[in-house]
Amino acid sequence: MSCKTVLASKVSASFRNQIKQDIKERDIHPKLVGFLANEDPAAMKYAEWTAKTCAETGVDFELRKVSKMDLEEKITEANEDKSVNGIMVYYPVFGGKQDLYLQSCVSELKDVEGLCHKFVHNVYHNVRFMDKEETMKCIIPCTPLAIVKILEFIGVYNTVIPYGNRLYGRTIAVINRSEIVGRPLAAMLANDGAKVYSVDVNGIQLFTRGTGIHLKAHKVEDIEATLEEVIPQCDVVITGVPTPNYKLSSSLLKDGVVAINFSSFANFEEDVKSHASIFVPSVGKVTVAMLERNLLRLYDYQNDLTEKSKQQ
Amino acid sequence: MSCKTVLASKVSASFRNQIKQDIKERDIHPKLVGFLANEDPAAMKYAEWTAKTCAETGVDFELRKVSKMDLEEKITEANEDKSVNGIMVYYPVFGGKQDLYLQSCVSELKDVEGLCHKFVHNVYHNVRFMDKEETMKCIIPCTPLAIVKILEFIGVYNTVIPYGNRLYGRTIAVINRSEIVGRPLAAMLANDGAKVYSVDVNGIQLFTRGTGIHLKAHKVEDIEATLEEVIPQCDVVITGVPTPNYKLSSSLLKDGVVAINFSSFANFEEDVKSHASIFVPSVGKVTVAMLERNLLRLYDYQNDLTEKSKQQ
Repeated sequence: MSCKTVLASKVSASFRNQIKQDIKERDIHPKLVGFLANEDPAAMKYAEWTAKTCAETGVDFELRKVSKMDLEEKITEANEDKSVNGIMVYYPVFGGKQDLYLQSCVSELKDVEGLCHKFVHNVYHNVRFMDKEETMKCIIPCTPLAIVKILEFIGVYNTVIPYGNRLYGRTIAVINRSEIVGRPLAAMLANDGAKVYSVDVNGIQLFTRGTGIHLKAHKVEDIEATLEEVIPQCDVVITGVPTPNYKLSSSLLKDGVVAINFSSFANFEEDVKSHASIFVPSVGKVTVAMLERNLLRLYDYQNDLTEKSKQQ
Repeated sequence: MSCKTVLASKVSASFRNQIKQDIKERDIHPKLVGFLANEDPAAMKYAEWTAKTCAETGVDFELRKVSKMDLEEKITEANEDKSVNGIMVYYPVFGGKQDLYLQSCVSELKDVEGLCHKFVHNVYHNVRFMDKEETMKCIIPCTPLAIVKILEFIGVYNTVIPYGNRLYGRTIAVINRSEIVGRPLAAMLANDGAKVYSVDVNGIQLFTRGTGIHLKAHKVEDIEATLEEVIPQCDVVITGVPTPNYKLSSSLLKDGVVAINFSSFANFEEDVKSHASIFVPSVGKVTVAMLERNLLRLYDYQNDLTEKSKQQ
């Protein structure tokens, strides 16, 4: 057994150090507000990590516990409060479509999670900038971004190949097709050249780069295949099933597979390491680093410190 | 038994005539594109009504049957096509949160259904105009708007009371809390002064005007009550349960109640008329009239024919 376990803390270290140094050198005090409106233990844990990481790196983090019914009004207040540079919400709140509504209530200039409609839309359409002048890069949904950073760290992205095609030749399964992680992640990986099987309880879809000129976007097809057929083909298997009972059978994994779990529950069986070459048991700490990275970017946009304005 | 049945065709007649006359007098040819990406019989029927009503009133309607996977690209093409003045989609497409994503993919200047995030957000926050200069009135989600127009037609809105408070003193139940009809409808009725019980499978919420100054919006509370407790208090009961088996027990209805069903299935029992003073069995034809009304408004915005520009 020669599987290497890669911890999120290791992947996030260089990002955290860079953020810490940047904040110190520039002597700035970016403020992030997190809204907690549920009693979900996973959300609570995520909030604790955010607080701890922010304290270490010099971000002023404030956790605001609010009732579900007050949340939208509190978000609106924070949108208008100039002392707040970033806003995040610990989901689920209502759990259904109303949560998607709430995601778009966060001002795009403060949306560190990258979950408002404009940012998610831009990911699907490979739109890289917020403005026509191309001075402000888009914010990318932070968990999909964290997973891409992990894939870069562990060498799944091939840096010899030109940017935008560095996953060419890779077959990847993403078991989760949520609007906030699985679907944008599948699109991002396909846009970078991978063949992606997107799996949820309703079936399997194949995401590929596609040939559509109009949208410069990935292509999606429903396919008639089972998990048993697709998983053995995959170089990378990424799981995010939000239930304690789900376990992907290790017998389906091809030897040398890269296994990444972003669920707060362990979706791989204990013997995953007898098949995998690399196993990443969780991604949360990288996600928090991406939140901070997005916060600094938005801080500059709010203070008109983009490259363009610096040149003027 | 003295219940009066009011048909949607009767309520919609004056709107249709006005739209027809307006189109004829101005000699314009507004074009509405409807996207059908499902095999749902209710959606097909709705598409047929749209086509028929548009033909009668002079709107150039084109039904485009597309695959689910191509829908987003086709919407984007229509957004950019200057010959298209309005876009609508027959939902459900994917059925879950992805449908909410699609709703916000329609350009707000062509969104005749009023379902993009900005319009739904503005309904909740009582924002009446799209622009700061207040020259362009917001588009209101069309089924909730149709139900308000029905309530005005049948005299539930009291025109003796000042505008904005015309439902004061009324108690209304809305059985459906979807993001596209039930929740915005409950908010609109509360903003007009009613006490609204919003009912879904997860429980009952009470929407009232509230006292929040910040958002100038309604207030929402979870309440511990059963359907058996709230329905007998209601002057108006509005149902929208999308299943053939759901029937609201007539024994709960108070005598003289106004009963309105917007589901494509009959949610009231056959003997509803032995309790109700007014019964509206369906609303679809008013919804189509509101689509056309929204289309004409957006046509003017696209062609810069707002009041402000007319005055210049």
